[in-house]
Amino acid sequence: MEQRAASTGPLARAGAWIDSERGQRTVFGLILLNAIVLGLDTSSTVSDAIGPLLSALDSVILIAFTVELALRIGHQGRAFFRDGWNLFDFVVVAITLAPVGPEIMVLRTLRVLRVFRLVTVMPRLRMIVHALVSSLPGLAMIVLLQCLLFYVAGVMATKLFGADFPDWFGTLGASLYSLFQIMTLESWSMGIVRPVMEVYPYAWAFFLPFILAATFTMLNLFVAVIVNALQSLQDQDSKEVGDAILDESHHVVEELRSLRAEVAALRLALDDQRQAAGRIPLPALSDAGD
Amino acid sequence: MEQRAASTGPLARAGAWIDSERGQRTVFGLILLNAIVLGLDTSSTVSDAIGPLLSALDSVILIAFTVELALRIGHQGRAFFRDGWNLFDFVVVAITLAPVGPEIMVLRTLRVLRVFRLVTVMPRLRMIVHALVSSLPGLAMIVLLQCLLFYVAGVMATKLFGADFPDWFGTLGASLYSLFQIMTLESWSMGIVRPVMEVYPYAWAFFLPFILAATFTMLNLFVAVIVNALQSLQDQDSKEVGDAILDESHHVVEELRSLRAEVAALRLALDDQRQAAGRIPLPALSDAGD
Amino acid sequence: MEQRAASTGPLARAGAWIDSERGQRTVFGLILLNAIVLGLDTSSTVSDAIGPLLSALDSVILIAFTVELALRIGHQGRAFFRDGWNLFDFVVVAITLAPVGPEIMVLRTLRVLRVFRLVTVMPRLRMIVHALVSSLPGLAMIVLLQCLLFYVAGVMATKLFGADFPDWFGTLGASLYSLFQIMTLESWSMGIVRPVMEVYPYAWAFFLPFILAATFTMLNLFVAVIVNALQSLQDQDSKEVGDAILDESHHVVEELRSLRAEVAALRLALDDQRQAAGRIPLPALSDAGD
Amino acid sequence: MEQRAASTGPLARAGAWIDSERGQRTVFGLILLNAIVLGLDTSSTVSDAIGPLLSALDSVILIAFTVELALRIGHQGRAFFRDGWNLFDFVVVAITLAPVGPEIMVLRTLRVLRVFRLVTVMPRLRMIVHALVSSLPGLAMIVLLQCLLFYVAGVMATKLFGADFPDWFGTLGASLYSLFQIMTLESWSMGIVRPVMEVYPYAWAFFLPFILAATFTMLNLFVAVIVNALQSLQDQDSKEVGDAILDESHHVVEELRSLRAEVAALRLALDDQRQAAGRIPLPALSDAGD
Repeated sequence: MEQRAASTGPLARAGAWIDSERGQRTVFGLILLNAIVLGLDTSSTVSDAIGPLLSALDSVILIAFTVELALRIGHQGRAFFRDGWNLFDFVVVAITLAPVGPEIMVLRTLRVLRVFRLVTVMPRLRMIVHALVSSLPGLAMIVLLQCLLFYVAGVMATKLFGADFPDWFGTLGASLYSLFQIMTLESWSMGIVRPVMEVYPYAWAFFLPFILAATFTMLNLFVAVIVNALQSLQDQDSKEVGDAILDESHHVVEELRSLRAEVAALRLALDDQRQAAGRIPLPALSDAGD
Repeated sequence: MEQRAASTGPLARAGAWIDSERGQRTVFGLILLNAIVLGLDTSSTVSDAIGPLLSALDSVILIAFTVELALRIGHQGRAFFRDGWNLFDFVVVAITLAPVGPEIMVLRTLRVLRVFRLVTVMPRLRMIVHALVSSLPGLAMIVLLQCLLFYVAGVMATKLFGADFPDWFGTLGASLYSLFQIMTLESWSMGIVRPVMEVYPYAWAFFLPFILAATFTMLNLFVAVIVNALQSLQDQDSKEVGDAILDESHHVVEELRSLRAEVAALRLALDDQRQAAGRIPLPALSDAGD
Repeated sequence: MEQRAASTGPLARAGAWIDSERGQRTVFGLILLNAIVLGLDTSSTVSDAIGPLLSALDSVILIAFTVELALRIGHQGRAFFRDGWNLFDFVVVAITLAPVGPEIMVLRTLRVLRVFRLVTVMPRLRMIVHALVSSLPGLAMIVLLQCLLFYVAGVMATKLFGADFPDWFGTLGASLYSLFQIMTLESWSMGIVRPVMEVYPYAWAFFLPFILAATFTMLNLFVAVIVNALQSLQDQDSKEVGDAILDESHHVVEELRSLRAEVAALRLALDDQRQAAGRIPLPALSDAGD
Repeated sequence: MEQRAASTGPLARAGAWIDSERGQRTVFGLILLNAIVLGLDTSSTVSDAIGPLLSALDSVILIAFTVELALRIGHQGRAFFRDGWNLFDFVVVAITLAPVGPEIMVLRTLRVLRVFRLVTVMPRLRMIVHALVSSLPGLAMIVLLQCLLFYVAGVMATKLFGADFPDWFGTLGASLYSLFQIMTLESWSMGIVRPVMEVYPYAWAFFLPFILAATFTMLNLFVAVIVNALQSLQDQDSKEVGDAILDESHHVVEELRSLRAEVAALRLALDDQRQAAGRIPLPALSDAGD
């Protein structure tokens, strides 16, 4: 028990250090170094010359990242896995540690994703990514609509043109890819629709409405992003002006209240005077207009 | 008579059930199933293996949709046809039931449009489509202007380049299609204008102004969509702030009115006192400044 | 004199009729008919069958337009030429009447521009075009900047790549055209920059900054259009809210003034009472706080 | 000392003249002339005919610019180098004066950059460029994010496809260029991704997410520019309305204060009257409501 506490002591301190600003800056440097190592590794000249060194560096950095994550998990406990950024860090490192099968090439390539950890350790970049990602749910319905449009158009295109143009519309997957290309307007006419129209002269009656619908939906997705961004800006803005005016207005009401109190005091005094002179009291306010 | 009422009873109940949330969820499930069936049908492997089953499922679903529509028409009566969404459902199902001529292939393909019924049964998707469609009338004039531009440019291009480039500008239809392609900027230069310029060196004097005019009009259509979206947002926004301020202001005026009544009562009391002392009444308010 | 007035009478009446709503509707019909005639004329089948009829119709319509313009000029006098729309009508008709030289083909094609007269006679379309055109002066500086960028880049491209790629950069004009194509992103890489880079490996250092600068300037032109549209919308909007609030505020001030008058009257009355009792007058307001 | 002052006299006057409006207009004319000279120089016909004249003109203008800069530096002293526009002028002229090595061709071409000095001498153009440039810092984080995305995708593409497609993805530089092309959507599918998919059928799983991420980030960069432009517009706008309302409100408060003073005076008078009649003073304001 005694010994355990002793070994937990330095671990807790290390975990705290990792979460401190200085620890984060060290991690930042490691990620940057890793990015450079991976970049150099793409050049066959450099790779031939100092390939083993680069591999060693990469392994060292991977070990450092693994230790870092272990310390942070040990330090934060379960709370660690509740934060999206931590999960991202964990997955990115875990990918590289995964047992390697025949897809070794692809998995090795995924190492590069670790460079995205730069986002995790730079607060301002994190904020931007957070803003980008948090604008996505508001777009869900338009994206769903776009997917529906693609699915329907994909099935139709496969049925209509699949037999004659197997490369472009042979399967549902091929059709969806081709329709995506058409939506980006890349070679849609010269590359795809004109050749199709040589076999099916009325093919334009399918593709033109699709292009109009798909780009109009994209345009509205775009508009939704702008409107969302402006809405939050404007809400804050008009709230500020409104608050300033309401503050001022409250001031006026307060001033009025004390004025009224002054008048009431005046009236009381008069009333007093009259009573002293043996008079009947002032008429009630509701009769004031008589 | 007795028997009729007996047969209407269950029909009315069935019609009500279809319009209920549970009925709509069942329809939703059927549409989803239909979408999967139609998707699987595009794969020749799947089609070879379980083609008859898919056909049977499709027929069953079509019968279910027909019964559903019949029940809803029976239940809602004429009101059914006044709703755009109902009309859409009706047309989409009716298309498939239409007598099949030689264009069997195309008509069979239109079955896929039934998948769009998902929009009809998902309220949030319906709202989005409603918003998209209701933004169209505001764009009518810009679209009309664009059409005018296309018509004039189409006639000119056919007259000028039709003889030498029959594939692109041989007929008015071909010209309109080519101009649409040029407006989307797809291969406009390498694919069309540069070849044309080899025969007519001044062709750029026709195509460049067309591109500028067409894209500037598109840009303004785009801007109109954004402005419409923001206008409704802003109207609501500034109305809220304005209302809060006006509320406050009404409060101030009310406060002032009661204060005035108080002062008036005070004056009346003084007047009373004076009259009792055999004095002349107070001067009228209009003379108050004297 | 007498005779002159007699001949002016019907002319004036005809001129007034042309400017009336009914006259404008007749002109509208003629333009539409002309558009159809010119459209039919593009089809060689139709042209072979009823070509002479179409020519005759076109000539009749041209005469009608000439008479219409003459009447309107006679009716409105010099004021006619002060309106941009009238000038447009005049130029479009005058083009067709111009003596025909060897460029007969092109001039005959310009007849189609008459169809744009639809804009002149449809008030809502006129409004849209007016809005589009009136947004242009606000863009003048950005357009000038873009022109400057194109000129500098054009001269540089001609000097750098003209010798090896005469088709694309052989003259300043060819360079400007190619740069315009590159700005629209049409085949910029596969069609132009990659081939150039095979001869000049560092060509990307010229083209990439150009693309970024040109599209960023275009983006800002775009933003300027949106901001202009929103500015006019917003000005009007916030003016309305502001006016409502200021109205209310004026109401408050008015209420306050009459309250003050009431209090002043009260004071006068009290003063009166005191003077009658042989007292000194009330202290001046500036001493009220003592 | 005496002599020095004498020689400084005319220099100072010349420096002041250069900075005056008339001097700037002369410089403006020289830049325009230089632009025309450089433009004419691109035409081999003109160059063959009056090449030496153009060269001479260019040299004279260069000398004039050098003298101008020397005078302005002499006149403004160190302050000259603190202004960004002056630095731009200085660099653009210095480039041409730099000793010429083997890259003579490229350096000669950079002469054309002098035409950009038009921006420096036209205040309205200067303002626009200033606005464009000053919107850049606000975009820094999104640009950094885009760079990160490009770097990671570039390294991955080089690793994955470099061996089979050396022209497009052979080196990190080639990959970045190809990815930029793909982001602009130029021939991304027909030109690059479809050929790659013939070797790696799952290449779309790399390129489609890249396209979506890169264009979504670009869209947000775009939105940021719009929002920045609108923010400054709106701040100013709502400030104006708010100010008008607050002004009015201050007016109301002032009116209320003087009214209160009037009432207080009234009360004082009454109190006076009462005291004269041997009465107890009025109750304190805090008891007024009793």
